[in-house]
Amino acid sequence: MIKQSRHDFDSLLNPKSIAIFGSFKEGIFGGYPAVRQLQSFGFSGKIYPINPRYNEVLGIKVYPSVNEIPTAVDLAVIMTAATTVPEIMEQCAKRGIKAAVVVSDGFAERNEEGAELQRKFVDIAKKAGMRIIGPNTAGIVNIKEGFALGAYECGYEKIKKGTISFITQTGIIALQAVPWADFPYGINKFIDLGNKCDVDESELLEYLGNDPETKVISLYLEGIKDGQRFLKAAKEITRRKPVLVLKSGRTKEAAKAIVSHTGSLAGDDQVFDSACQQANIIRVSKWNELFDFAKILAYQPLPKGNRLGILSCTGGVATMLIDTAAEWGLTIAKLSAESSDQLKKLFPPAWGANPIDWGIPTAYMPDKWFPFYQQALETLLKDDNIDCIANVIWIDPFGSSVDAYTKLAEELQGTLTKPIATWIYSPSSSHVMELSYRLESLGFPVFHDHETAAKALGIMFRYSTIKDNSL
Amino acid sequence: MIKQSRHDFDSLLNPKSIAIFGSFKEGIFGGYPAVRQLQSFGFSGKIYPINPRYNEVLGIKVYPSVNEIPTAVDLAVIMTAATTVPEIMEQCAKRGIKAAVVVSDGFAERNEEGAELQRKFVDIAKKAGMRIIGPNTAGIVNIKEGFALGAYECGYEKIKKGTISFITQTGIIALQAVPWADFPYGINKFIDLGNKCDVDESELLEYLGNDPETKVISLYLEGIKDGQRFLKAAKEITRRKPVLVLKSGRTKEAAKAIVSHTGSLAGDDQVFDSACQQANIIRVSKWNELFDFAKILAYQPLPKGNRLGILSCTGGVATMLIDTAAEWGLTIAKLSAESSDQLKKLFPPAWGANPIDWGIPTAYMPDKWFPFYQQALETLLKDDNIDCIANVIWIDPFGSSVDAYTKLAEELQGTLTKPIATWIYSPSSSHVMELSYRLESLGFPVFHDHETAAKALGIMFRYSTIKDNSL
Repeated sequence: MIKQSRHDFDSLLNPKSIAIFGSFKEGIFGGYPAVRQLQSFGFSGKIYPINPRYNEVLGIKVYPSVNEIPTAVDLAVIMTAATTVPEIMEQCAKRGIKAAVVVSDGFAERNEEGAELQRKFVDIAKKAGMRIIGPNTAGIVNIKEGFALGAYECGYEKIKKGTISFITQTGIIALQAVPWADFPYGINKFIDLGNKCDVDESELLEYLGNDPETKVISLYLEGIKDGQRFLKAAKEITRRKPVLVLKSGRTKEAAKAIVSHTGSLAGDDQVFDSACQQANIIRVSKWNELFDFAKILAYQPLPKGNRLGILSCTGGVATMLIDTAAEWGLTIAKLSAESSDQLKKLFPPAWGANPIDWGIPTAYMPDKWFPFYQQALETLLKDDNIDCIANVIWIDPFGSSVDAYTKLAEELQGTLTKPIATWIYSPSSSHVMELSYRLESLGFPVFHDHETAAKALGIMFRYSTIKDNSL
Repeated sequence: MIKQSRHDFDSLLNPKSIAIFGSFKEGIFGGYPAVRQLQSFGFSGKIYPINPRYNEVLGIKVYPSVNEIPTAVDLAVIMTAATTVPEIMEQCAKRGIKAAVVVSDGFAERNEEGAELQRKFVDIAKKAGMRIIGPNTAGIVNIKEGFALGAYECGYEKIKKGTISFITQTGIIALQAVPWADFPYGINKFIDLGNKCDVDESELLEYLGNDPETKVISLYLEGIKDGQRFLKAAKEITRRKPVLVLKSGRTKEAAKAIVSHTGSLAGDDQVFDSACQQANIIRVSKWNELFDFAKILAYQPLPKGNRLGILSCTGGVATMLIDTAAEWGLTIAKLSAESSDQLKKLFPPAWGANPIDWGIPTAYMPDKWFPFYQQALETLLKDDNIDCIANVIWIDPFGSSVDAYTKLAEELQGTLTKPIATWIYSPSSSHVMELSYRLESLGFPVFHDHETAAKALGIMFRYSTIKDNSL
């Protein structure tokens, strides 16, 4: 375990009382939506809006200054114009507040004048022993505590609680940018680091490494402040839980863009790549993979080996899927003699081997094919020669199998000893969406394409060889 | 131009009269849905169902045999048990029918007995000069003629007519497997070659190369029967229209699976890869890319160079997008002095350079930010230093900008001289779906992730260097 105490960041990620500096005019940006969201997500701590020009917002008192707040304050949230931040930080320091989230932008990421303002408030905070996330952060969310802090109105009231946490340095992983409320699977925390004037990815990684609520950590990074510390933490944490990283700035062109929008340096990509390998970080190459691979790692058991069983409706899909699976280190399992015999009995002319092409019985026995699919899946689940399953589902035009697939998933939920990655196709998009939502709600991840489903299983296998199962 | 006449395949792809051999019992597989779909898609030719056990199906007469049909027949569609196919082929040959689509399976893809049956009916057809698509095909569709031939019920009545055509050898590109009716953009033809006992990908490629209705050709292949002919055709056609190929069997594991499900050989993948490069085929690596890149190539103008302009709401997205764009040969454009000045006037502290981060004005001016987005986009469209545009759209939680984006797309429709690839994000999935549908209906392709949007523009640029603009 990393020595850092679990409580170091509690004022930032799990505060019991918050002072919010901003505008409380009804609108989609600033203090107003910040308060509304904390209320609707059920934040149980105290909220103290601060602005001398308001008396009340959303049913709670607005204080003219931080000095008037009657109780202790864990966290200051600052969402005012950049030029006002040093003065506010000074007030917070005097009041004994130990942590701040600075949402305001216009600092080091903007120009030299902004960089100077940033140095100024950081100095004040450092002298007072305050910790800061930001500036230029879009917010922090800790679902369990109802601590949903965002600068923008997100339009929803709740996110399903789960075990995936995100660290990021872009406003794109924030309340207003991702349809979190539409996710059928659960999320734990997400933190936008912004300009990282103080708290950085290494410290937060250490924190989440020790966080019992977090089972999978996904990071989007543009640069790393302390590479040694980050990799040391990752190496230790990845023995216990997977760490996924998407790092941009692979190309010279993107590295240049990073300097201009966050003021940080991307570093040499090949060095970073080999460091990731050494630290057992799963480096992903696409934005959606940060979510896709996190969901399968969080909600499905790890495979015990790399032998893939495939249930498919057409040979074509199975073939495409096998290409990706093989590229990611999986082999096509040979069914046990027992499984093979069982399947041959079920549908003699076409079955008995892996991949199992259950499209054939659908053609001949449209009214009664679901039991065939179910028995084929159950055979793969029982077969000791199979470590993981790619599950290609077809839904007929009328959606008549949607309930049957759902019922089967309900029966299987909690019983799995090997992972299942699902891809669904159908002549009806709405059936695909409906069943995807239901299956993911039950913990069975569904992927946008069959290649990603196959790669997800490859990632699961890779992580199974990294994880220290004795821990 | 390839010498083959446009009319060679008219009996297969544009028949005026069809005899359908199958079961006409109401259900989701066989002759019944085949007739229903031809009717609902508005097939204007004659339909002659053939089966001695029926008198009538869906309001039309069923004939006891092909001999009773009163008029000439262009095409026989055979969807009966494998063992009956040689005899039916014999009857068709005698009746003078010149083309057949054999939907039935259980031939070379199944076992040696099936292969023998296949040889038998192919012999009969060859002697009579008949051309065959199949066996083991899921069907053929030619939207313009309402010729929607599928063995399975698809549940919808219409597909939007467009200029993208598909050639495939899997039932996965067929009426019942893809939500074609939900596509906002148009499709022209799709043909599942099945076992390719006669007509193969080369002939069809030549046909579509000369087809004035088809602007983009997408192929999914597992093997190629006549590599020389295929590449020769492709080399000639790609000067005029783009040819996208997804070929599975890249890995040994998948090549093995291909033998077992279609009986064809995958061949050496590296050889195929370099052949594609020589023939200017765009080889794609994922299933969805067959659709994604086809839609931008079909519905957006080609870029004149590789200089990318980016409109984004967050620096993070722009950075990730730039990585992919640079990997696909695009450079980040430098705005003209005029554009830069205009943008600086619009929003002094943050604008004036590419990427244009229009997230900043959204934060400060939530009520009036749309005109800023619009002016920024229009500036990129006018700037001669910009060849293509990556357009990152954010929709607020209430969807209040969906109509404004739609209106702007309506205004721009038909005026573009450079391509725009769009990615949309929002805290609401339903807004993303709604606006994606509207924009694609207007010819502005939207991608599932920003990396694919960037890659799509890279593919557009690559094709612009291939196309012979003097033709």
